[in-house]
Amino acid sequence: MKDVAARAGVGLKTVSRVVNAEPGVTPDTERRVKEAIDALGFRRNDSARVLRKGRTASIGLVLEDLADPFYGPLNRAVEEVARAHGALLINGSSAEDPDREQELVLALCARRVDGLIVIPAGDDHRYLEPEMAAGVATVFVDRPAGRIDADVVRSDSFGGARAGVAHLIAHGHRRIGFIGDQPRIHTATERLRGYHVAMADAGLAVAPEWVALGSTRPERVRAAARTMLDAPHEPVTAVFTGNNRVTVTVVRVLAERERPVALVGFDDFELADLLVPGVTVVAQDAATLGRTAADLLFSRLDGAGGAPSHVVLETRLVARGSGEIPPWDAG
Amino acid sequence: MKDVAARAGVGLKTVSRVVNAEPGVTPDTERRVKEAIDALGFRRNDSARVLRKGRTASIGLVLEDLADPFYGPLNRAVEEVARAHGALLINGSSAEDPDREQELVLALCARRVDGLIVIPAGDDHRYLEPEMAAGVATVFVDRPAGRIDADVVRSDSFGGARAGVAHLIAHGHRRIGFIGDQPRIHTATERLRGYHVAMADAGLAVAPEWVALGSTRPERVRAAARTMLDAPHEPVTAVFTGNNRVTVTVVRVLAERERPVALVGFDDFELADLLVPGVTVVAQDAATLGRTAADLLFSRLDGAGGAPSHVVLETRLVARGSGEIPPWDAG
Repeated sequence: MKDVAARAGVGLKTVSRVVNAEPGVTPDTERRVKEAIDALGFRRNDSARVLRKGRTASIGLVLEDLADPFYGPLNRAVEEVARAHGALLINGSSAEDPDREQELVLALCARRVDGLIVIPAGDDHRYLEPEMAAGVATVFVDRPAGRIDADVVRSDSFGGARAGVAHLIAHGHRRIGFIGDQPRIHTATERLRGYHVAMADAGLAVAPEWVALGSTRPERVRAAARTMLDAPHEPVTAVFTGNNRVTVTVVRVLAERERPVALVGFDDFELADLLVPGVTVVAQDAATLGRTAADLLFSRLDGAGGAPSHVVLETRLVARGSGEIPPWDAG
Repeated sequence: MKDVAARAGVGLKTVSRVVNAEPGVTPDTERRVKEAIDALGFRRNDSARVLRKGRTASIGLVLEDLADPFYGPLNRAVEEVARAHGALLINGSSAEDPDREQELVLALCARRVDGLIVIPAGDDHRYLEPEMAAGVATVFVDRPAGRIDADVVRSDSFGGARAGVAHLIAHGHRRIGFIGDQPRIHTATERLRGYHVAMADAGLAVAPEWVALGSTRPERVRAAARTMLDAPHEPVTAVFTGNNRVTVTVVRVLAERERPVALVGFDDFELADLLVPGVTVVAQDAATLGRTAADLLFSRLDGAGGAPSHVVLETRLVARGSGEIPPWDAG
């Protein structure tokens, strides 16, 4: 606003009057202010909102686990976009509980957020329809909305997992385990689908005991890994892990063992490259996920119409050593 | 409330009447409900608040960097306590900017949070006095409040750093560098004080070029580390790092070098034990910090009076290899 005022050669109060269509401004001054606004790309809607309501605009971000480092860069990217728009970001965690998600989303709406970014825990978001109809812009990230059509920004979980498993197959593996998150989570099933398709592409059968979906609690993951690694019949020679929480536990399990086992994990994580061996990962760009979702949200808040966008970001395979270990039973 | 109703053998409405001191309950029923409440440790004030206001109680947590993994377990611990009290947690980040902290705190107050947990970025919190006088309970975590007396829960930064530097001295080091966060941050200066006292305790002089405070951006930390490691005169043989963001960058710098340099870092971090060498740290218990602060906040919300509490939690030195490397110029 200061820049607009300086460029138009008027005071802040005059800019505010023009923005709010208040009386007391000559047509010539109004024109100059509007030209300055256009020239500076000043976001009229946001600022008008702030001025009208007499409070700072805010957006809410509901994610699923505050302690999962995957969400750190996503969170920060959303915050940077919000700040660039002069808006505050307030967050909350569903702890992967659909009821908690709904409670939190509605509580943020009741506290008059202007928009919402939701990493959904549940699979039915019809409860949000009245809020969206009342003007609360909403973008879903990481996973699609359930039973409503809404803006979604997510990574290509299926394609990423398929490429990661194909990488292990290309290094000679035939018996590959998959340890993933709960089957009701969209990304978990998409990554499992990528695993199955990659195995089928290579003409490899999958034994039921090679697949373990469940919570990411270390005890569960550790037990699942040991079961498939120590099976008396057809133990796996490689493991594909469905997210970074699973990967760090499997890294610990493999560090304790003599026989080298190959590993590719979905999600990059801090220090993955400094471990020995470095951990090969299918990296998704958490910051770009957050930034894209936040840009989309603010374009909706600025009045952009049109059908819901479904943005899918590519993943990237980063080879660091663990995914290039050959099968221990190879020739 | 369901448990209270079941134990007292009455309906939910009756429990609500007793809690809210509404008419229509016989003295005998009232006594049974109150006994059930006492027996179950039911938090009368919280529930009364929720029932009275017809909305869910909520607390706000303002931290300084959403992408710093140190805050993950703290955040989750606060959330678990909030949930146990039937309250929602909403978060925001100051991004280490005092103005942003104030804006966010006041925005949360305007959105009617019942209490606040603040990891302060600023050093003047008099702006919070009207809110606190109006009943918004506030607990500061990790760093003390500035210019007001308030509840504080923090780790012993001074003692922890002193012990960590003494550990390096005990392993033969005489030239030890200190790379820390910005000097306006309380924990940064407390840890630097611990470094100076440990050096003085051992009768060791500190060259000015061995101390580098500043931002935790990797480029800044990398340059600071290289400067003190490559000094033509009196290069350091060991480094003490002031927090986990600094440590992970210094680990990368040291991994590229031939000459082994000892390292002790303040803050534990995920995978520190799996690096080679394992990283010796002064661990603070982030989950206990969060839990203690949240318990204190809810006791205030439940009406606990008394002078502000100043809780200081002990740190713990965890030796894993990097801090036990002898000086490369040792006899």
